[in-house]
Amino acid sequence: MLYTVINDQFIPAHEAQLHVSDLAVNRGYAIFDFFKTQNGKPVFIEDHLDRFYQSARFMHLDINHTRDELKALLRELMDKNNLPYSGIRITLTGGYADDGYTLAKSNMIITQQAIKVKPLNIEGIKLATYSHQRQFAQAKTIDYQMAIWLQPYMREQGADDLLYHHNNIVRECPRANFFIVTQNNEILTTATDVLKGIIRKQVLSLANTGFTIKEQDISLDDVLNCKEAFITSTTKNILSVTQINGRLIGNGNAGKITTALSKQLAVVIAHNTGW
Amino acid sequence: MLYTVINDQFIPAHEAQLHVSDLAVNRGYAIFDFFKTQNGKPVFIEDHLDRFYQSARFMHLDINHTRDELKALLRELMDKNNLPYSGIRITLTGGYADDGYTLAKSNMIITQQAIKVKPLNIEGIKLATYSHQRQFAQAKTIDYQMAIWLQPYMREQGADDLLYHHNNIVRECPRANFFIVTQNNEILTTATDVLKGIIRKQVLSLANTGFTIKEQDISLDDVLNCKEAFITSTTKNILSVTQINGRLIGNGNAGKITTALSKQLAVVIAHNTGW
Repeated sequence: MLYTVINDQFIPAHEAQLHVSDLAVNRGYAIFDFFKTQNGKPVFIEDHLDRFYQSARFMHLDINHTRDELKALLRELMDKNNLPYSGIRITLTGGYADDGYTLAKSNMIITQQAIKVKPLNIEGIKLATYSHQRQFAQAKTIDYQMAIWLQPYMREQGADDLLYHHNNIVRECPRANFFIVTQNNEILTTATDVLKGIIRKQVLSLANTGFTIKEQDISLDDVLNCKEAFITSTTKNILSVTQINGRLIGNGNAGKITTALSKQLAVVIAHNTGW
Repeated sequence: MLYTVINDQFIPAHEAQLHVSDLAVNRGYAIFDFFKTQNGKPVFIEDHLDRFYQSARFMHLDINHTRDELKALLRELMDKNNLPYSGIRITLTGGYADDGYTLAKSNMIITQQAIKVKPLNIEGIKLATYSHQRQFAQAKTIDYQMAIWLQPYMREQGADDLLYHHNNIVRECPRANFFIVTQNNEILTTATDVLKGIIRKQVLSLANTGFTIKEQDISLDDVLNCKEAFITSTTKNILSVTQINGRLIGNGNAGKITTALSKQLAVVIAHNTGW
């Protein structure tokens, strides 16, 4: 049986409930973070906890656990659930508000689910662009209304995911950051008004292995002229983008630099798995 | 004891819970509507149900009840709870999603709470302006992240509520529509990109009682030059605005036209209370 943590309690996952007065249910007010475990060990745990505490602080939410207490809860949950390859989500809500509007004592929910190790998608994914700016770009909030609302549009476009832009500057995918490789072999990812993903950060750090990698705003024109494109996320690591709005990127296969970065990233992940 | 409806079940209000896999909790994906009861009878029930079904359709959510079935649930809840003066909220969520992302069978939650009949606030309220455009203005979704996030800012400004604008065009308050009375005694409310409130609609209908009332975009300059200002909402009906960003509107008391409209609105409310 799988367990879920609600505040300090371990509850059978299928019975894990929140009262309907929580501000997540009433007002969409909550933040979260999500990390993977491999071989029973967390990946980039310190980066994810850093961001979880940052998102909470930015959104005026108190975490009622010290970092050590939270880690102890995570370890205990991982021991109980015994899922070697998993995704763990920590959600922090606005709490049970008497008036349905004013922040109360936060509720924390920790869920763990098995993830399958998928075979590498060699062809990569197709994106459709859409004009949208996330309202709190710097915090990982639960606001995915636009992404879910756009699912029928995305399917009509024959796309696998969305790419948001704002005033023609590319932002991000709903659950991933976006990179291009220019004709000069520069690797660029948009600098501003995006969620700073953990894999994004690790890819930027690969600049010390000989790649030219920069945070720099990318226009839709830059995307049309790029040599390669890829997205980064905790679940996908690096995944090649082979079409945008029905137009091929490069020759429609995963590019050489994308593949080289993936190999380097795998080394970094191996070094950052564990407590 | 008070009851809450979850889907088709009447549950003691303090035990009304949703599983944490609901898309409201995970992705902030839900819509709702809210109406008042007076003397045990609903106010503007048809308008609220119209909007509830419209919001659901717009957000791709299925309501698993016909309008008559929903009304029967509301009547039964009102009978059980026996609260003559109350607010009833119907929330419809994205449902329990296995993958935490894809719309599932909606959950419907109906809660009822007593509301106190407050003495009339003669002085009216103070607003602070803030640049923000709600992402799905035409639907009553649960996204109040900005409004709740701005509560400390609002208090710093000494304001009672916020007034959103976008590119200098006034939009709405987080939970109310906004009107001005011009120096020519024209009553204006912003036409576009706002939630079309039920009291807003009823105030617009008062044009047939001799007032000049128009839907027309209002600039921040128009607000600075107005004679009177007021907000409308289900809980507040018409409420005078006496200060914006610390600046007095009119002489700082409820204006004559605002007061006259309030009296006319009370007549309309009396005629629209009941099934």
